[in-house]
Parts: sequence; structure tokens; C-alpha cells
Amino acid sequence: MLYYTKTAPMGWNSWDCWGAAVNEDTVRKNAEFIAQNLKQYGYEYVVVDIQWSAPGAKNHEYEPYCELAMDEYSRLIPAENRFPSSAGGKGFEPLAEYIHSLGLKFGIHIMRGIPRQAVQRNTPIYGSDRTARDIVKTDSICAWNTDMYGIDPTKDGAKAYYDSIIRLYAKWGVDFIKCDDIAREFPQCEDELKLISRAVDNCPIEMVLSLSPGPAPLEKAELFKQTANMWRITDDFWDKWELLYAMFERAEKWSIHTGAGRWPDADMLPVGAIRQDYDPNGFTNFTQDEQITMMTLWSIFRSPLFIGGDLTKCDEFTKKLLTNTEILKMHSNARNAHQVWRRNIDGNEFILWKAGCSEGGEYAAIFNCGGTESKIGIELRDLELPEGSICCELWSGLKAPIKDKINVRVAPHGAKAFRLS
Amino acid sequence: MLYYTKTAPMGWNSWDCWGAAVNEDTVRKNAEFIAQNLKQYGYEYVVVDIQWSAPGAKNHEYEPYCELAMDEYSRLIPAENRFPSSAGGKGFEPLAEYIHSLGLKFGIHIMRGIPRQAVQRNTPIYGSDRTARDIVKTDSICAWNTDMYGIDPTKDGAKAYYDSIIRLYAKWGVDFIKCDDIAREFPQCEDELKLISRAVDNCPIEMVLSLSPGPAPLEKAELFKQTANMWRITDDFWDKWELLYAMFERAEKWSIHTGAGRWPDADMLPVGAIRQDYDPNGFTNFTQDEQITMMTLWSIFRSPLFIGGDLTKCDEFTKKLLTNTEILKMHSNARNAHQVWRRNIDGNEFILWKAGCSEGGEYAAIFNCGGTESKIGIELRDLELPEGSICCELWSGLKAPIKDKINVRVAPHGAKAFRLS
Amino acid sequence: MLYYTKTAPMGWNSWDCWGAAVNEDTVRKNAEFIAQNLKQYGYEYVVVDIQWSAPGAKNHEYEPYCELAMDEYSRLIPAENRFPSSAGGKGFEPLAEYIHSLGLKFGIHIMRGIPRQAVQRNTPIYGSDRTARDIVKTDSICAWNTDMYGIDPTKDGAKAYYDSIIRLYAKWGVDFIKCDDIAREFPQCEDELKLISRAVDNCPIEMVLSLSPGPAPLEKAELFKQTANMWRITDDFWDKWELLYAMFERAEKWSIHTGAGRWPDADMLPVGAIRQDYDPNGFTNFTQDEQITMMTLWSIFRSPLFIGGDLTKCDEFTKKLLTNTEILKMHSNARNAHQVWRRNIDGNEFILWKAGCSEGGEYAAIFNCGGTESKIGIELRDLELPEGSICCELWSGLKAPIKDKINVRVAPHGAKAFRLS
Amino acid sequence: MLYYTKTAPMGWNSWDCWGAAVNEDTVRKNAEFIAQNLKQYGYEYVVVDIQWSAPGAKNHEYEPYCELAMDEYSRLIPAENRFPSSAGGKGFEPLAEYIHSLGLKFGIHIMRGIPRQAVQRNTPIYGSDRTARDIVKTDSICAWNTDMYGIDPTKDGAKAYYDSIIRLYAKWGVDFIKCDDIAREFPQCEDELKLISRAVDNCPIEMVLSLSPGPAPLEKAELFKQTANMWRITDDFWDKWELLYAMFERAEKWSIHTGAGRWPDADMLPVGAIRQDYDPNGFTNFTQDEQITMMTLWSIFRSPLFIGGDLTKCDEFTKKLLTNTEILKMHSNARNAHQVWRRNIDGNEFILWKAGCSEGGEYAAIFNCGGTESKIGIELRDLELPEGSICCELWSGLKAPIKDKINVRVAPHGAKAFRLS
Repeated sequence: MLYYTKTAPMGWNSWDCWGAAVNEDTVRKNAEFIAQNLKQYGYEYVVVDIQWSAPGAKNHEYEPYCELAMDEYSRLIPAENRFPSSAGGKGFEPLAEYIHSLGLKFGIHIMRGIPRQAVQRNTPIYGSDRTARDIVKTDSICAWNTDMYGIDPTKDGAKAYYDSIIRLYAKWGVDFIKCDDIAREFPQCEDELKLISRAVDNCPIEMVLSLSPGPAPLEKAELFKQTANMWRITDDFWDKWELLYAMFERAEKWSIHTGAGRWPDADMLPVGAIRQDYDPNGFTNFTQDEQITMMTLWSIFRSPLFIGGDLTKCDEFTKKLLTNTEILKMHSNARNAHQVWRRNIDGNEFILWKAGCSEGGEYAAIFNCGGTESKIGIELRDLELPEGSICCELWSGLKAPIKDKINVRVAPHGAKAFRLS
Repeated sequence: MLYYTKTAPMGWNSWDCWGAAVNEDTVRKNAEFIAQNLKQYGYEYVVVDIQWSAPGAKNHEYEPYCELAMDEYSRLIPAENRFPSSAGGKGFEPLAEYIHSLGLKFGIHIMRGIPRQAVQRNTPIYGSDRTARDIVKTDSICAWNTDMYGIDPTKDGAKAYYDSIIRLYAKWGVDFIKCDDIAREFPQCEDELKLISRAVDNCPIEMVLSLSPGPAPLEKAELFKQTANMWRITDDFWDKWELLYAMFERAEKWSIHTGAGRWPDADMLPVGAIRQDYDPNGFTNFTQDEQITMMTLWSIFRSPLFIGGDLTKCDEFTKKLLTNTEILKMHSNARNAHQVWRRNIDGNEFILWKAGCSEGGEYAAIFNCGGTESKIGIELRDLELPEGSICCELWSGLKAPIKDKINVRVAPHGAKAFRLS
Repeated sequence: MLYYTKTAPMGWNSWDCWGAAVNEDTVRKNAEFIAQNLKQYGYEYVVVDIQWSAPGAKNHEYEPYCELAMDEYSRLIPAENRFPSSAGGKGFEPLAEYIHSLGLKFGIHIMRGIPRQAVQRNTPIYGSDRTARDIVKTDSICAWNTDMYGIDPTKDGAKAYYDSIIRLYAKWGVDFIKCDDIAREFPQCEDELKLISRAVDNCPIEMVLSLSPGPAPLEKAELFKQTANMWRITDDFWDKWELLYAMFERAEKWSIHTGAGRWPDADMLPVGAIRQDYDPNGFTNFTQDEQITMMTLWSIFRSPLFIGGDLTKCDEFTKKLLTNTEILKMHSNARNAHQVWRRNIDGNEFILWKAGCSEGGEYAAIFNCGGTESKIGIELRDLELPEGSICCELWSGLKAPIKDKINVRVAPHGAKAFRLS
Repeated sequence: MLYYTKTAPMGWNSWDCWGAAVNEDTVRKNAEFIAQNLKQYGYEYVVVDIQWSAPGAKNHEYEPYCELAMDEYSRLIPAENRFPSSAGGKGFEPLAEYIHSLGLKFGIHIMRGIPRQAVQRNTPIYGSDRTARDIVKTDSICAWNTDMYGIDPTKDGAKAYYDSIIRLYAKWGVDFIKCDDIAREFPQCEDELKLISRAVDNCPIEMVLSLSPGPAPLEKAELFKQTANMWRITDDFWDKWELLYAMFERAEKWSIHTGAGRWPDADMLPVGAIRQDYDPNGFTNFTQDEQITMMTLWSIFRSPLFIGGDLTKCDEFTKKLLTNTEILKMHSNARNAHQVWRRNIDGNEFILWKAGCSEGGEYAAIFNCGGTESKIGIELRDLELPEGSICCELWSGLKAPIKDKINVRVAPHGAKAFRLS
């Protein structure tokens, strides 16, 4: 069943730090860190990203046309050399069990479709007398990964196939599915998405369904709201200012579709120790101010919050960034957020967002997209608030009554967040 | 100066009832009705619509190529036969004075550009040594009215011309300008809009600047917010269900641009005695439920509210419709409104909107776009509200605590509005 | 009646040399030159271009909103100060008579529509009880000239108006009408074009109907073939290499629509003494090689050939250019011309055209679009000709049998033309 | 080397009659028929169409994901069960030798790319140290056939692969290659096409390179002229009037690109005994008049002429259709063909084509696209011919001098062809 999440899901995902090469040991250590340090702040999902069935995966590059671990029913299973607890056909069940024992939830990545090697060998489909070649859509492949062929939803056996993989994941104890090669593949994958969503919804276990990669088409917003919990609004997001800057426009467009268990997703947070598969000293290129900007935007917009860095190397700044309780309260309580304006002030572009607060009052956030520190006076009337409103800046905790303008200095690529009452 | 209006402007406009043929007597009588009956609810602007300088105007059809009343500086003035108090070069000053004496504000319609007859005669421009032919844009005409040529903003004298008309209106006591043939004419009229807006902003008197006709292009939202108080999001709106139904999508798209003195405008309310120039018994074709739908949508979306009917014939239903204090409070206090979903339920399409409330709590509105009365249960979790919230329906005044769903019956083409706390 | 011209029309037009300011004396002198020097080569039409009814026209700039000479039936007539023989209501009849007496034909320019001043005054229409305002299309103006409003072809009186002007021109003795503001105004002017074409076709006198300005839309080729004799495939063509270069692509696209009395028109030849209204020493900026390129392309493509320069100042080169009998034979006898290829050879772009010849054999032309003289070998097999074909170069008259390749040097921006048999 | 063909290639192709299931016996029998009956008319190429390496091919449906016959260098070879002479690694060499012995030429079909099974097994590439996975373009597949992956032309080994297959075909004695999945795949396959074309051009043997499927994009005409001998201007053409009717517009657009060894291809002629894989009595659905229309259009347009029917069942009409010497002379000698007009006459649409003739005079063809027999008078002046021209109708052989019009009756969906001198 599609799980209703009152707030946007939070957790950790292996992609930014380990690419296709994540292994069981890393997952366990990150889960342990979360249980000890982040669980109380709301982080709960631990997600194993792409190609966990490829024995030879080494880094972020997908190995093309490689032999994948697969069961007799055309279903991919974990590569035992990378996930030892899966040996003997146990799949992800032992790992999920361990993560559940930490009070956390377990997620996996999947690709839309059926393994090409299953089609080559024409292997059976569980719960059907059809075989792999019967359900394949011959002209449907992923543009950037060679593992799968797409499924033809009109074919007998197609539904059985998707039901069979979701059933397997439910048996393993999977709480979260990140389904890839689907969120921007429209209109050609609309019916395939519906089939996957229905398979999840008909499964007795509650699961979050997350769609990748973006940008998901805005005009399909209602479809995403009906078929998934979260969907990517961008292509892969990385630690570059240009990508962060571009997110403001994406978030603006999607803002009216956020909330009530349905979450447009600005992608993982590339913070801390990322790209570990290439460099053990790999670290985010974002400045601290940029990270504050990112965390502020993701929170007022209520994007899902998935940490991308390897937490076993988590430094103090990153931990503080991720655990500011006022910011995380905004992530829970903001309502009807949207951009108020974009303006050039003294040569820097500023962006103002506001939102209601479910506990009364309003939130606001100001972003300085320019390259120099700059002063700005935010007029209360642009927030439709009366004179004398009390304003608390969430990153510093400073609080004061305001006459007509909130006067602040904002660092280059930095942000301030406010609670107003 | 562009006037900052804390709430979306409210008032009366002569177009829906008298077309191009409105006269002074009608304006005075409607103003008097407002002063006595509607002023306390917030209605304050009394607006004279198009072609007040055409002596022979008879109804909604514009008389083409007709001789217009004009002063020696190429500026249109009221036709004395229709506005007797303007005789002797007094313009709209006496009428404005009278309306101000009622505690109301006075507005007029203008067309972008300069009269064609001024160009033909090459008459002077006040405050400039240029003449009409010097500032005209030869390839710029209105598609549906033959009074004016457009202005070339790059020409010497162009600024002087727009300054000169705004100065004249300020002298008359005009509080509100509805500028026509501009809001959808992009990109060709962008610079002309800026010239007009700056003329208003540089004028010492506070005025509301309203732009017509729609649909204004959404991608120019920031420009409209910077240059005007309100701008039409549709072509002329009339009493047809199809037009009302189409407004939901327009309002959805514009919802993030509403508030803080800037108002996307869903156009006048064609209620009561409209089309009086054709038929003294003319009356809105909207059903009462459709009018409730309209008033609910305009209010939660915070559109300007301009009454289209001749108020001297105002009936009881119309008066109640326009003066429901809870609905008008929503029009003042709603914040960050947006559409939550559209769904087909039992064969009828329902639309759910929500908004925050500046006094705490939330507003919601449910619209039944289908042709039959239908029951619906609105889930509190779709509104992101907790169980046990108190719900008050604004049209009926009924109030009750809610467990998980607001269960209501909604009439065909009807609506319910809720305040939740 | 639309006149069937076996070959593309040839003559002289006043625009390139005198703009809107041409006068009777100039026309007579140019006609006399043609009669004495060019008539025997096929040049026969003498055309008075735009704004001959504007008394104050001074050069290529149109005087906007000016008073035009007009008869009592809303029809423009020549400005007497510029065309003295028209005095006393005789119109162009005396001038046409003189030109006929020289053995030549007479043409005039007109704008689509009815004079704005006729609409302003609401003057009568000959042969109808309607007046100017009855037939005007209120949203139809020319983008670059302010003389006229468009006609609404659905209105009573519209046909009568166009019939009345054609009748007047027939009475004057006009053989050629260049109708402007119509050839690229699609789809909005399609019905107006049909009305004009039918007026010409129903008139007892044979006239050539020429449409301007271009680019006429290619997808309307069949319409042009049915309604006109020639239509412009470009905007105004002037003495710039970029415009000449662009003509190759235009000619390529239109080549299959040329012939049988229907002529896509590459515009006047800006040769010799042009721009005389600005500068008595004005002269074409084209190099001699560029003029040879132009004359070669216009001739193999069979464009109409209208001389743009003032012939009273015709120099020796220009005269030779315009009177090469072999080139002019190609202009008469080429059939089914088309581009064979475009190729980069030694850094220069070459273009090869070919055509059949109505007297047997083939024509070919090679153009060097590059900036340096270059050698090229044109393979006979690219022309589908057998080895041993005899080749005559038309500009030089040199003749030789060819083995497999025609080896020539071509000047920068120059051309060679061949007759092969 | 790309072979220069003076006239558009003619021959036979196995697709229309046997689909993917053609076998050696059929090819030999058809070749024998051609040698005895059609060779003297110009038919010379015998082409084995798609999936000759699939042992299980049964009809026009491609067997997906099936095992193909392949050599150790990733190159497909004939399925021995269908082409017995290829046994023992001899490939098509024995068959080609037999066809050459009949005085004919031998052609084969190939798909762009490398077999998916080669990529799966990562087999070697002849003449390179790279293997299949090194040169594959991971996101490039055919939309309608599952045999191959596309090649990435930028990869080391890509050129070697294409060189290696062309070398193999040269060794076999292949004179004609029909390369599929390429002619409409733009821009994504442009560089792959260039690689294939260069491989052919660098091969010491002369070969014709034919590209499929259509519609090839018109804007790439120059590219096709430089890289291939013929290319399809339509998707598969079959025996339906709608498809034949649509060919007029395609031929019109491509007409200026025909000739000099480069041939836009209107596809095979579905005449006689077609669809034999489904029905031994399968026969073209075209009426005789429609076949005359097709043969006339293909000939004046100079499309390649490839017979689609199984010639072992050739009937008398079909044979006559294919061997009219006057029509085939037009196919050789027409020059610069193009459409003159399309007109509705008495309720039927008529289309007129004309062309020059390399031996002097002109060709013309009139097509009646309407459903009833109709009379038409073709004006000589529309053909730019003088009165008194002699006209010979090519299908009937009738000859007469013409005054001003060729008056003929044309059957529904029928055609007449003329030689005029």
C-alpha cells in the first residue's frame, strides 16, 4: 500500500557517496550512525541505491551489459559479494531486519522494466505462464543504463511481473522503493508507472514509492500525486551553485503541489563526505552558506530530505546543518509555501519565499543569489503581516519585534529563515 | 503613485450593465446605492468603463471611427451629452467630487495610445513641443476598437503624452485607472506599459492601475507585479458556466502571484441586472449556485471584486451574495491560496482549494463542477489538518468538529466554503 | 483579365532610384530610354511605384498620415504636383498613353485596402450604396505604411470597391498592377487577395498582377499561381551580398513553381544609378561580378527582370549586363531549372544550377559564393550529360567540347553560365 | 566504392512477397526469371531482404530477441537452414556467384549496428583489439526490431567494425546494400551513416548503398546525396490507394533532388504475387489503373524500380506493366521532373507532372486521383510548349499533333503519360 507520510520523508541514500558500488558494511554503518545521532530529528529511511545486483560495480559509472544476480523468476537479487547477508537466496531480508532493529526503515532502488538478460534467456515470470519475452516492450530502453528492457503494460504477464517483484520486496521487508528511469519518461511510461504504483498499492505492506530521475513533467502533477509519494523535479542534483540556483525556479513551479503525503523532490543533499568511490577525501564543494541556502529552501518547500554523504565521516558543521530543530520544524509545519518575488538589489539577486505555519503565524526565507554579502530590508507588507510582528531568525535564534521591515545582512549564496507571529 | 491596497479592490463597474453607453445619471445612482448599502462591506470604487468620450455610444458595440470629445492637447474628455457635469471643460472633476462626497472612490477606463483623430489632425502634446504624429507607433492598433493608435515609447514626446493624461486625471480626482488594450499585448506593449505605470507612479496622487483585457501572459507575472495593482487573467468574463469553469485553471496558475497589493483579476461579477443597454429586463444567466461558486472562488483566490450589475435594480439574492461577511473576511484574510486537487467522484468533477488564514487556521472550498448534486467527503489529511478540527461552513454558518472527513452535499455547479481551526 | 505572359515580365520600376518621390518627368525619360535602347531585348513595362498620390513625398521614407489625392469615390489619384498630366481628373491616362505611344506598357503600384482618410470622412464607394466605413476591416493595417485600412471581404461593398479601382485603372490604360502589403500577409489577407485577383480577372483589359512584399509563404504556392502573375519571394532586395546570397535558397525552394505564366519574383535589379532621392551620385554597391551573379541567377530561375536604376544615367557596363542576348535567351528558354548541389571547394562555397532548354540541350550555371577566385571542375555526369557535349559559356561566348569536366575559374561572388548540347 | 548509376537502379526484392522468411530457393528462382524475362529491360539487382541470419524467421513479423547466425567477429552470416549454399562459412558467396552467372547483380539487407548477442557475449571485432561492448551506443536501438544495438561512431573500433562487415560483403560478391534503421533516424544516426558510407566508399568493390526506412528528412537531402545512392522517402509502401496518393506530395518535394546517380526512393512496387508468406494466393490489391499510376509516377520521378512480387507467379498484366519500353525510356531519360499543378476538375483531383527529355522534347503525365473516369484538357501552355506539338501517349502508343490542349479521358486512379516534341 502507498504509505501516507504526514511530512516529507527523511533519511539517507547511498548514491552521492558510493554510487553504484555501495556495500552492506557501509549501509550498516550509516544506519548505525543515524540510529545514534539523527533518528530523533526525523531521519529514518536508509536507502540502497542503484545496481546492487551487479557483482562488479566499482563506482558511479554503471557497468554496461554486465551479468546481474537474478532469481529463477527474472527478478534481480543482491550481489552476494557485496551484500553477504543475502547469501543463500535470502535477498535483502537480513539487512532490512537489522535496520528495522535500529528503529529505522529500509529502502532500495529499482529500475523500471525487466532485466535484458532475462529476455535473452526468456526466463519465467512468477505467478504467470508467460516468460520474459512475452512482456517486453521492444522499443523501450533506458537512455543511460543497459540493465533492463521496458515492459509493455498491455501484455499478459506484465502485471504479474510487477506484482512479483513488489511481493518479493515486501517479503524482504522493504519500506521504500526508489523507482528509476520513469519520472521524466512521458508519455511513453505513463501506463508502466500506473502498473508499478498499483502493484505497490495492492501489496499488503505499506511502502513509500519514490520516482526518478527528474525533471518530472509539471503537467503530469496530478498523475504523480495519485501514483507516488515523491518524484524528482530535477535531474541528478550535485554540489554546484548553478544547480542549486536553478532549484529556485523548479521549486516555485512545483510549490502548489506539495503536501498531504505527496512530495515533489529536490533530490538528495550532497553534503559531507561524498564521492567516496573516487576519493576517500571527497567532500562537498558547497560552501557552508550554500548548504544553509539548500537546507532552507528544501525545508520551506518541504522537499524530502535524504542525506547524500557518508555519515561515518560526518563533521560537526554538517551535523548541525542537518539537525537544526527550528529549521526541521519548518520542514514539518510550513504550509502553502511559495515564492513572493525575485529582485535585483544592489547588484545581487534576492529571492523571497513565504509559507503559513500549521501552528499559526508565517514562515519566510530570504536568499541572496549574488556573489557578495548584501543588506536587505524585507517589507512586512510583502509578507502581508502587520507592523509589530515578532520575528525569529531560525539559524541564529535571534528574535525581535519588527516595525515595517526586517533588516538583515545575507552572505553571498546564503540565506536567512524567519518565523513570524 | 501606485496605491498599495492591503486587500483586493472592490467596487462597481459600468461595463456589464451599460457597455459603452453608460451616462452620468447611472453612475451617480449606482454610487448612491453603494454608499448606502455596500460601502460598509468594503465596496468603494465606482468605475466608468470604455468610450465615455464618444457622444453617440449606444450599447456594448463600439462605434468605429467616430468623432470623440478631445481637448486641445490630444487628450480625450467626457462627452458632454452623456456627462453633463463635464461641460465647460471641467472633465470628470464634478462627478469625481460627488463620488468622493459619498465616501467612495472614482475610476475611469482608458485605452492605451493616442486618439487616431489627434494623429490625423496632428494636434499638440501638453508639456512637449512634439505633436501627435511624432509619438505614434504606426503599426500599433487595437484589434477590436478603432479609437487609438499605439505610442512608440522610444519617441520624444511619448513620456510627455502619458504624463499629460495622468496629470489631467489626477486633477479630475481619479483614484483608479483601468487601462485597456494592454494586458495581453506582449511583448509588443511591454515598454508602453512601463511608460504608463511610471506616469502613474510619478504622479503625486495615489491611484490604482488596472490592466485589461486578459488573458495576461503568466510568464510576465513579475512585470505585472511591478507595474500594476491588478491585471486581467481572462478575456471578458460573462455569465456562462463554461467561462466560470475555465476560471479554475486560470486561478490555479495565478494563485502564487496573489497578495501584497498585487492582484490577478478574474474580472467583474456579472450578477443582477446586466446588459441593460439591450434589454431593461436583462438579468444574469448564472444560477444562484453558480453565483455562489463564483463568489467563493473569487474570494478564496482574492480576486478584485467589481460588481457588474446595475445596482438600482439590485434584488435580495444578489445583495446577500455580495455581502456575506464571512465570505468577505475570507477575501481579506486568505493567504497562500491554491488548488489541492481535481477529482472525478461519482461522475462529477470536484475541485478542492485551500488557503491559510491571517488570523490562524485554514480556509477550504469545495466546488462541484458536475451537473448533479453530489455527496463528498473531504479528508482532513488532504488539508493537512488534525482530527478534531472545528469546521464552519461560511454560506450556511453551520459549525461542527470533524473526525477525519468533512462530509457535505454540494449542488450542481455549486460550492461550499469552510473555515477550519 | 489576368494576362498570360509566356516569359517572365521585364521592365523598369521607379522604387530603387526614386523611392516614394518619383515624378512624371523621370518616368517619361526612363520610358524613352527603354524605347530606344532596351525594348528590343524584351524590356517593356514601365512601373510607377508607391505613394504617387502623396503630394509631399520626398524620398524612400513614406510620409505617415499625410493627406493623399483622392477622388470622390474613395479612390486614390495621382498627386498633380508630381504628375502634371493628371490635372483635371485625368489620372494616369495621359502618361499611360504616352508610354503606349513608345511601344511600351504602363504599370502602377497600389496598396491593399482603402485610404484611412476615406474611412475618416466615410466617403462613398463607386457602384455601391455603401461607404468606406462599411467595408473596412477594423483590425487590418499595414505594418510599415499608414495610408490604408484593409478591406473586410465579407462586407457588402468590398467587391464593389475593388472592382471600382480596377475599372479606373483600366480606363487609365494600366497594363500592370503591383499590389503591395499582401504577399506575405497570410492567412489574414487570403480572401482580400482573391477579391483583388477576381476584380482584375473580370476586367475586360489584360493586366499583369504582381504581389508584394515578400517573402510570400511557400505553402501558398498554388494560391499564388491561381491568383497572380508574379509574387515576391523576398522582402525588399538591395545591393548587399548577404541578400544576394540568401536568394539562392529562396530560388531553390520556389524553382518548381516557375513557368507557364506564373513567376516567383526575386525583386528588382538594384543596378546603376539607384537611391537618387538621397544622392545624385548614388550607385549600386554590387561589384560587377555580383551583378553577373544576380543576372545569371535571375535568368536561369526565370525571375521577372525589373531594372531599378535610373536609366538616364545608365553606364556601359550596366547596359551590357542587361542586354546579353544569350543570357536573355536563357531567361526565355530555360525549363525546369533547379539547384543541383552546394559544395565547399577549397574553402569557397559553390552552387550549381541546371535547367533544360526549350530548344534542346541544357543550361547550367556555377556560382562562387566565396571571397576568392577559385577553379572548379563541373562533372558532366552531375548534369547528366554525356562525354563530348559542346559547352558555350554565355558571358564570354567561348565554346568547346568537354570530356568529363567543365573546368573554369570563377571570380569571388561571380558566376559562369553555360549552354550545353 | 559508391557505384555511380546513370539511371535509377532496377531489380527485385524479397520483402513484399516473403518478408523475413525468404530462402535461397526463392531467390534463385526469381533471379532466373529475371535473367530470362526482365534483364533486357534493365532489371538487374536481386536483393535478399531482412533477417537472413535468423534460422526461425517465418513471415513478415520479425522474431524478437532470437539467436542469429554470427561469425566469430560479431558479424551476421546467413542462416544455413534457409541458405544451404552458405554452409561451412561460405556466407553468401555461392549465391552471389550464381546470380552473377546469370548476368545479374546481388544485394543484401543489413541493419545499422552490431548484434545484441555480440554485445551480450562481448565478442571480438575484426581488425581491432576492441570488442563489441567497446563500440556500442548504449541508448541506441531500433524501434521495431530487436536484433542490433547502434554503434557509437566516436568509439575506437567503430570504424573497424563497419569496415569489417563491408569487407566481408565484398568478399561474398555483394553489389548492393540496403541498410535499414537509418534513413529517418536523424539527427541521432548522422555520424553512423557517414561511417557506413565511408566504409563502402573505401572498399575496392563498387556497391550501391540504399537507405531505409523512410521518410528520410528532406532537410538532409544534401547529406543523402553525398553518402548514398538511394534513400527511402516513405515508410513501407504497400498496395493501398492512400499510400499511393500520398506519394505525389512526397515525390513533389523530392523532385529537385533526383538524378546524377542519386535517387530518392519511393519504395518497392507491390505488384503481382505478394504476401506469399501468409497466403500462397496473395496478390496485389491495386487495380490495374492504380498500377499504371504507380509505374508512371515512379518513372517520370525516376524512383528506383524494385519489383516486390514473386516473379515465379508473374502474370501477363504485371509483365506488361513492368516492360513497357516507352515508360522505361522515360525512367531513363526524364530530366528535371516536377509537378506542374494539382486541380479539382469536375469533382476529381488531377495532378500534372512534366519533365524534360534528355533526347529533346518533354514528358508529361496526368493522374486522376478521383473515383470516376473523367475527361481533361491539358493546356500546352501549362507545359510551356508551342501549338502544334506532337504528342505520343506512352501506354497506348497513340500519337497526334495538338492544337492547344491534350484532350484525354483518364480512368479513376489512373494515369496517362506523354512524350511531346
